[in-house]
Amino acid sequence: MDLQALVDAASTRDWDADPDGTVSLAVVGLGNYARNVSIPAIEAGDYTDLGAVVSSDPEKAARVADAHDAVVLDYEGYAEGDAVDAYDAVYVATPNRLHLDQIRTAAGHGKHVICEKPLEATTERAVAAVDACEAAGVTLMTAYRMQTDPVIRALASFVSAGGIGEPTKAMGEFTFPVLAGSKGPGQWRLDAELAGGGALMDVGVYPLNTTRYLLGADPGAVEAMARADDPFGDRPADPDSPRFADEHVHVLAAFPDGVVGEFTASFSGEADTWLELVGSDGRVRIENAFVPDGERTVRISSDAGEIEFSGVGANETREEFDYFAHCVLTGTPPEPDGRDGLTDVAIMGAAYEAAESGSRVELTRR
Amino acid sequence: MDLQALVDAASTRDWDADPDGTVSLAVVGLGNYARNVSIPAIEAGDYTDLGAVVSSDPEKAARVADAHDAVVLDYEGYAEGDAVDAYDAVYVATPNRLHLDQIRTAAGHGKHVICEKPLEATTERAVAAVDACEAAGVTLMTAYRMQTDPVIRALASFVSAGGIGEPTKAMGEFTFPVLAGSKGPGQWRLDAELAGGGALMDVGVYPLNTTRYLLGADPGAVEAMARADDPFGDRPADPDSPRFADEHVHVLAAFPDGVVGEFTASFSGEADTWLELVGSDGRVRIENAFVPDGERTVRISSDAGEIEFSGVGANETREEFDYFAHCVLTGTPPEPDGRDGLTDVAIMGAAYEAAESGSRVELTRR
Repeated sequence: MDLQALVDAASTRDWDADPDGTVSLAVVGLGNYARNVSIPAIEAGDYTDLGAVVSSDPEKAARVADAHDAVVLDYEGYAEGDAVDAYDAVYVATPNRLHLDQIRTAAGHGKHVICEKPLEATTERAVAAVDACEAAGVTLMTAYRMQTDPVIRALASFVSAGGIGEPTKAMGEFTFPVLAGSKGPGQWRLDAELAGGGALMDVGVYPLNTTRYLLGADPGAVEAMARADDPFGDRPADPDSPRFADEHVHVLAAFPDGVVGEFTASFSGEADTWLELVGSDGRVRIENAFVPDGERTVRISSDAGEIEFSGVGANETREEFDYFAHCVLTGTPPEPDGRDGLTDVAIMGAAYEAAESGSRVELTRR
Repeated sequence: MDLQALVDAASTRDWDADPDGTVSLAVVGLGNYARNVSIPAIEAGDYTDLGAVVSSDPEKAARVADAHDAVVLDYEGYAEGDAVDAYDAVYVATPNRLHLDQIRTAAGHGKHVICEKPLEATTERAVAAVDACEAAGVTLMTAYRMQTDPVIRALASFVSAGGIGEPTKAMGEFTFPVLAGSKGPGQWRLDAELAGGGALMDVGVYPLNTTRYLLGADPGAVEAMARADDPFGDRPADPDSPRFADEHVHVLAAFPDGVVGEFTASFSGEADTWLELVGSDGRVRIENAFVPDGERTVRISSDAGEIEFSGVGANETREEFDYFAHCVLTGTPPEPDGRDGLTDVAIMGAAYEAAESGSRVELTRR
């Protein structure tokens, strides 16, 4: 692939079978990200619309539903199958530890599911989520928006076509200073039980999953270091809420063929996100790599020359929901499926174990 | 420190006491780096000149000596003190595993020493080198040219003055595709016994030592992964020459206050060198960080604003020898002293142990 062909590919949707129809989604959980990023993407999609919203806050739910002409459900109504004809599929955007319950409900209604990352808070629960959807014969997609970002998709093709030679190593960072934000210590992502961990589960999953996607391979072992000294400073956390271990985390992941990935994630510090892949004959660096709907800057040096480009691509969240709908409408299994999400939860669980023990943890293939 | 003051500092020598006199150096070992980088720097220095060259290759030695009006010695003559008045100090540029012998000889002659990095091939031998110079009362400097690079020195002041807030993590890479070079598998840096290791000892020491310098702190524990599958490919190595374990190496180093450094070094793959420091309120990225006499590009985001600069600084190798001479002439202990070099050898030895065992290795303070 020459470099101009790569830039062209990074601007283009590469999976669209132009299916008939649309998929109407029930959005389960109306947090900030669902309201401000996901619902606008669903409304803008070629193959999606908003059929229902599920929330425990009736006022918030009514505000969102009225603006979008959607049905309002509370969690009991959703569980009991109220207005089940108002939606074809379910988008799960609750705290991580609650994904399994909502996925089981969707599968019980025979609805396809797209679930936010990470798939669940523990490996055991992620396995149960995959099993529930397989048993019900419904599609389960993990909402890895990087895998539907045209820039990232084009880079995956470039790397797999040998654009950087044989990959040798990967490095990536997602530093997201949530602790300095306005939402305070009570938010669920800072509750280790609801979130399944700290920075690694919430944002470290981005460089991890994106590297797995770009390499087309999974690590077989991890080492890690993590710390969380006094993350809440003078804003005391809920004393009943378990603390996470990783305000900062660093993971070494041993991929096949000797490729090692170094990933770091933080809940404090100067924000940045980037990913870099090194190969025998080239190198790809993505800046602004994981910012939602952010403009990626890509720098490549390779046998085919050097290039830097930005300003191409598309809103990857809209792409994500359209891709999910396309999969449902055409009966195509999604690339970021439930097992993809499960694999990351297992890797991150192993990384927490490695950080705690100080020893390399081998991963078993699932 | 405001950002323009930082740029100004990065252009300025900050240690010069304008001493009287010069230090005449004997260069021990006439490899490519000594001939093409170090000797021109010594000749160009304000306070240095070339007094002698020591080599086992009389023709090469004569060529170098004639061009610079220096005395020629072989290793036997150097050991026996021939022409000892022709030089005031010794620059050791032999393979790593031979540093100790040459340092002992210099100390025995009462000569000050500047020794290439890493200080020796093993911790035990590095300790012996430090002890020999202390017993003889001569100065021992480890030739960490980054510590005399005005850009790096200015950044160290910036970081220690709180320019990025409290440091939270560090990341760095030195990928040097020596295996793809023209020198073949017989070169000493590919001989684990002479070099003390592979990529970590040869180039990984740069991000490690520079981070220690910038943070003013030493790690207390390391984890690592390393591999060297078939580094020589179709160019068989000398069968009598021990193979190194690290064509590629990745180290996590736990510094005080929870700061973790991630360092990677490789002997193959697309070349690059960079270092990045993240703090609570800012971030410093140095591109082209470790290229000899290369132009650094520095990007900073901080409370004081954002800046990118390059094209400032000075030839850090000339700075290195002038700094050494300044220390000798003024009786100032060098910052990168023998213990600094010893500390890195110990850290790297622990990293090899960690990579081999898969377990975190604690470091004892020396």
